[in-house]
Amino acid sequence: MMVNIALVLEFDGSDYHGWQLQENAPSVQGALMDAVERVLGERPKLHASGRTDAGVHALGLVVSFKVDTQLRPDELQRALNGLLPPDIVVRRAEKVPLDFHAQFSVVGKTYKYVILNRDAPSAVLRRYSWHVRAPLDVPAMREGAGFLVGSHDFRSFWGGDSADPRDPVRTVEELNVTQEGEMIDIRIRADGFLRYMVRNITGTLVEVGRKKIAPSRVKEILDSKDRKQAGPTAPPHGLFLVEVYYETWHGGVQ
Amino acid sequence: MMVNIALVLEFDGSDYHGWQLQENAPSVQGALMDAVERVLGERPKLHASGRTDAGVHALGLVVSFKVDTQLRPDELQRALNGLLPPDIVVRRAEKVPLDFHAQFSVVGKTYKYVILNRDAPSAVLRRYSWHVRAPLDVPAMREGAGFLVGSHDFRSFWGGDSADPRDPVRTVEELNVTQEGEMIDIRIRADGFLRYMVRNITGTLVEVGRKKIAPSRVKEILDSKDRKQAGPTAPPHGLFLVEVYYETWHGGVQ
Repeated sequence: MMVNIALVLEFDGSDYHGWQLQENAPSVQGALMDAVERVLGERPKLHASGRTDAGVHALGLVVSFKVDTQLRPDELQRALNGLLPPDIVVRRAEKVPLDFHAQFSVVGKTYKYVILNRDAPSAVLRRYSWHVRAPLDVPAMREGAGFLVGSHDFRSFWGGDSADPRDPVRTVEELNVTQEGEMIDIRIRADGFLRYMVRNITGTLVEVGRKKIAPSRVKEILDSKDRKQAGPTAPPHGLFLVEVYYETWHGGVQ
Repeated sequence: MMVNIALVLEFDGSDYHGWQLQENAPSVQGALMDAVERVLGERPKLHASGRTDAGVHALGLVVSFKVDTQLRPDELQRALNGLLPPDIVVRRAEKVPLDFHAQFSVVGKTYKYVILNRDAPSAVLRRYSWHVRAPLDVPAMREGAGFLVGSHDFRSFWGGDSADPRDPVRTVEELNVTQEGEMIDIRIRADGFLRYMVRNITGTLVEVGRKKIAPSRVKEILDSKDRKQAGPTAPPHGLFLVEVYYETWHGGVQ
């Protein structure tokens, strides 16, 4: 019987060139496809909630695909987890309506960016945080972040390498900068993201935190619609795709 | 001028066969010694607060050694961090009195053991936690842990492979089991630890959490002074040496 399956994936992106299948480099999609084929005997088209860039992690990337199987979703989950490499884990597997599509049905996503703010680097967090040595002024970062909440043309924070995005307007519903000891988390929820948007926002807010630019400069950068104005792109290994939202389905793991 | 240097080390033990120098396997001591030699041009004897087993991590292992150098401790720290592999970091470097000895001057240590308690494994925490699938009863674990606080003969929780330890009495000053969502932390502070003691206590408390044994059984195991009575040894990758205490020097990083 043909069923539509949704998977919620956690992965450590350190050793992958992102989600997208590649010719000569390991990808999350490639690893998942191999496991799916070994369990189900076929290679269905895998739809992901979106691409992730090389080195970026996920706690809740959503993938959907249609297959003809008798396996229950929980059996499928366990079989896949038994065959996937340890840096990719299926957190949930569920049967979803046939018209559910992990990419086209998305209505929003949450990302978090993790910064380690102290003098010495970290051995155990080195793969999962950006080490920023200079002390950061978190209230200033928060003030700068405030200018980005709402619906805006985010072209200034877009980092693609070709033509402009067709529609650069996105709605940021939440952008919180929180600090716990030497860890600073930037959490951002929006209806969608331009490529490198979170990493460019993070790089810009870190410039604010280092007092290289004033918080109000974030608004000027946003208004300029000029991608040369924003700060540097933060490295990929501090970024986590946390959760993907759908109108008719809960993409989280809790 | 001959100085006595103390280093506080953080390391990811995943790829090391513990602290202790080995012939044909990578060790933390070996990696540190190589970096020290490149910076200082000599290979001084390195004294560590204690050995750590293969795969165990440290947030604050203390090392001391005597060298003839003009480098300030902060310069030494930066030079070492520039040469060490990224999974070993010097968190602090300080000049200490000549009679300070990282091993013999120890008066206590804190370890923590991290358990991930949920059905699916984790991709990003796989190196830094023990994945226990069965739901754990944390209040029961806490009750069992209570029997271990104080001065006791901990022979039952000793896991050495040869003759009995000469003095198996240790004083556990603190043993806290805390839960935050799906993470369970066992934090234990004592004046010293027998080999495998934290991992055997953890393995036993997990048996309590799984309701395989009653909390009061922990007291019976302790009283039996028989190492065959305790639960299984928890795996090394959930264990962190957090901090080492000295009478005259603060071995922490905060």
